[in-house]
Amino acid sequence: MKHLAFIPIGFIRTEVAEVPRHWSISDVEGEILLQPEYQPGLTGLQAGDRIVIIFYFHKSPPFSPENLIQKPPHRDQPAGVFSLCSPLRPNPIGLSVVEIIAIEKNIVKIKGLDMLNGAPVLDIKPYISYQAR
Amino acid sequence: MKHLAFIPIGFIRTEVAEVPRHWSISDVEGEILLQPEYQPGLTGLQAGDRIVIIFYFHKSPPFSPENLIQKPPHRDQPAGVFSLCSPLRPNPIGLSVVEIIAIEKNIVKIKGLDMLNGAPVLDIKPYISYQAR
Repeated sequence: MKHLAFIPIGFIRTEVAEVPRHWSISDVEGEILLQPEYQPGLTGLQAGDRIVIIFYFHKSPPFSPENLIQKPPHRDQPAGVFSLCSPLRPNPIGLSVVEIIAIEKNIVKIKGLDMLNGAPVLDIKPYISYQAR
Repeated sequence: MKHLAFIPIGFIRTEVAEVPRHWSISDVEGEILLQPEYQPGLTGLQAGDRIVIIFYFHKSPPFSPENLIQKPPHRDQPAGVFSLCSPLRPNPIGLSVVEIIAIEKNIVKIKGLDMLNGAPVLDIKPYISYQAR
């Protein structure tokens, strides 16, 4: 099957070595170090905004079929990978919702992250709640 | 820069030719036709659940630097691509939140989609509101 190729638009930087298991329980601060050429794409974003970061789980081991069912540490029962936020997925793509603290040129300071230091960033989108429907 | 390669885990199917500009204003129905080998990964998902679909904007033209600032049809002012949900992005990755209507083997019937027919699906995740924090 044809592969789809993406490039990192930046990288996550955080000094925290052990991040929370999920952004919804995180107060960890860090930053997106955006490649300088993409800086104009930040126009319109500001401190206090919530953004979605799509990133690459660069530390995940290769996925194999037995990982389609997993039992996360915080759950009693095993469940399908598509019902879980596990970093071990067919495509190791992560999604976190974080809050912008400040933007300084191509650096976006953020709060509430759950990515490991060095994670490649694939996209930044505005956060839109399902309740907006 | 090193490319990151992903594979489609399935494809979007819908009979609607003109989809709404965003899932938050969509009632369009369709389905995810998951590759059969990933079917066990759906375990634990059921009708009524909200899921996040990460997909590939397969109809987007190539991105160029002048697209870093865009003026969407429904906005007065141009803005940075990372503050917009435009399908024209450095990495053409889409994110939609939809509701599951039914799951039949490897077919996930969904409501509220805004993808074009044939869009490759990269990941399915549970929807978690920022308000869960």
